[in-house]
Amino acid sequence: MIIAVDAAGGDYYPKNPVQGALEAVKEFSQLTVLLVGPEELVQQELSRHSYDSSRIQIIDSPEVVGMTDSASAALKQKPNSSIAKGIGLHKKGLCHGFVSAGNTGALLAASMFILGKLEGISRPTVATYYPSLEGFRLIIDAGANLEIKPEMALQFALMGQVYAKEIMGIMQPRVGLLNVGEEKGKGTELLKEIYGVLQQMPSFIGNVEGRDILMPKADIYITDGFMGNIILKLGESLPGILKTLVEQRLQQSVATPEMLHFAEQIFSKALAPFDYERVGGLPFLGVNGISVVGHGGSSPTAIKNMIKVAMDCVEHSINDKIIASIK
Amino acid sequence: MIIAVDAAGGDYYPKNPVQGALEAVKEFSQLTVLLVGPEELVQQELSRHSYDSSRIQIIDSPEVVGMTDSASAALKQKPNSSIAKGIGLHKKGLCHGFVSAGNTGALLAASMFILGKLEGISRPTVATYYPSLEGFRLIIDAGANLEIKPEMALQFALMGQVYAKEIMGIMQPRVGLLNVGEEKGKGTELLKEIYGVLQQMPSFIGNVEGRDILMPKADIYITDGFMGNIILKLGESLPGILKTLVEQRLQQSVATPEMLHFAEQIFSKALAPFDYERVGGLPFLGVNGISVVGHGGSSPTAIKNMIKVAMDCVEHSINDKIIASIK
Repeated sequence: MIIAVDAAGGDYYPKNPVQGALEAVKEFSQLTVLLVGPEELVQQELSRHSYDSSRIQIIDSPEVVGMTDSASAALKQKPNSSIAKGIGLHKKGLCHGFVSAGNTGALLAASMFILGKLEGISRPTVATYYPSLEGFRLIIDAGANLEIKPEMALQFALMGQVYAKEIMGIMQPRVGLLNVGEEKGKGTELLKEIYGVLQQMPSFIGNVEGRDILMPKADIYITDGFMGNIILKLGESLPGILKTLVEQRLQQSVATPEMLHFAEQIFSKALAPFDYERVGGLPFLGVNGISVVGHGGSSPTAIKNMIKVAMDCVEHSINDKIIASIK
Repeated sequence: MIIAVDAAGGDYYPKNPVQGALEAVKEFSQLTVLLVGPEELVQQELSRHSYDSSRIQIIDSPEVVGMTDSASAALKQKPNSSIAKGIGLHKKGLCHGFVSAGNTGALLAASMFILGKLEGISRPTVATYYPSLEGFRLIIDAGANLEIKPEMALQFALMGQVYAKEIMGIMQPRVGLLNVGEEKGKGTELLKEIYGVLQQMPSFIGNVEGRDILMPKADIYITDGFMGNIILKLGESLPGILKTLVEQRLQQSVATPEMLHFAEQIFSKALAPFDYERVGGLPFLGVNGISVVGHGGSSPTAIKNMIKVAMDCVEHSINDKIIASIK
């Protein structure tokens, strides 16, 4: 299997994408990686490691899309960026998927315009993993669609269901609508309409509240991209905040080094469910290809995990299953 | 000062409201409390304590509004409820404010219809405290207005500013608009319009993101009641979730009782900023009176703190200052 990796995306390129790719080819024997980025820069980083050159190739893309570039401008003005080139390779069938920790907006735009939408899909979406007492669950939409309509919400739920089953191994994912109360009839007119449309899914468990997310009461939380983005970033900020609060208390405490070490260990393990690195990133759902987007700060391990997500999506023919599910 | 307390509201009435009132009269020497609820029930709880009967009086209200009763039905069908009666007493000038841990919707409806809106206010709002590294900050709206308009958002920010200064002691509160990115021009058309209107406030610091809330980057976060409600409940669920995660780790660990105790203590102190009980509740902002609403699960201490909030609002003439600020 051939996966293209954006070697000029994210906050730590080319280092993290290159190292993540190296980890991936070491771990997955059937994998070949195309590193898409400015050739010299990528070669320089690669040459610092020993690797099987038959399984790692560089595809030169001299232009770099900045993390704050506008998505449409980036596509038009930088046709030789790693994002445009990587998605282009995928479109031509030269690789099975593309993985990037770069500019999300530009990646979504390139995926939509170059790969196109899947048959029958009105709007592609991006989901996010959210921590819970039982592991990660899905929130859809996570920012691609700030406003949603009932028919979009239904497609998001159906696509999320395929993803949860095929990639996350959740056999009977429960779909919940984020709302201000549990009872049917709660919320805005739009939320009531979305409730009505989601009811046709046997897996729909009704409205779920903010307090249900971390339990988790559902496996797939349907909401708009405004809500998804705010609670995603709130969740991402939590481990750092909690670490600070614990450290402040530890500094004020009187204890032996052994006790301090113990408390730190317990606490860091307790926060492990909030560690987004384990999952890396998710594919855009509803585009005609496999395009996985991750956090700008992705570590090499996060990049490796994103490559794994792309491979899983290919192996499980996720797009065929999405098309079948929305028919 | 005379504060009426809903003795038939919340999940633990009459016990918690009665005990909270008793704690309050003990702590605040200038306070008299009117306990509004079914006389026999309240008398029964009161008789279990010794107290100064000149400073605690019972006002009989035989009907009880359930926590899930519809707000409008509760008002119409139960004119002798503690909420209708308590707010009615306040309207007649027989007390300086009303405090309830009961049905929020019914309390808001009663406050709006019986007390009316403050001069110049288009929509009253309810704020919530939100934890941060520097103590509680405000999120407005917390659920009273699921959808907002630019002019409402501006009034919310102005009212929040008065509250933050007068009651929270934040001298120069920073107002931020919850949005999906920091840059001006981010978000939906509505968010862009709200940004434009908030710009007339010198204290407006622009867009703030989900990751900024716990820092805190602003002192007052403006958003709609849908967002406010979801993140409020998400935040309220956090301490319990984190406690479970830490306990799971402690159970799996090998340690001396001393080490376990130490880790538990550190952790419980670190979570103190998330303890909503310290603040109890907040008044509806924009109604012509002082009507403080708290969590259904409010403890006696939370009720006492809500009484304190009502007293502070009276002492600081908060409504006069709100009227002046929106002119």
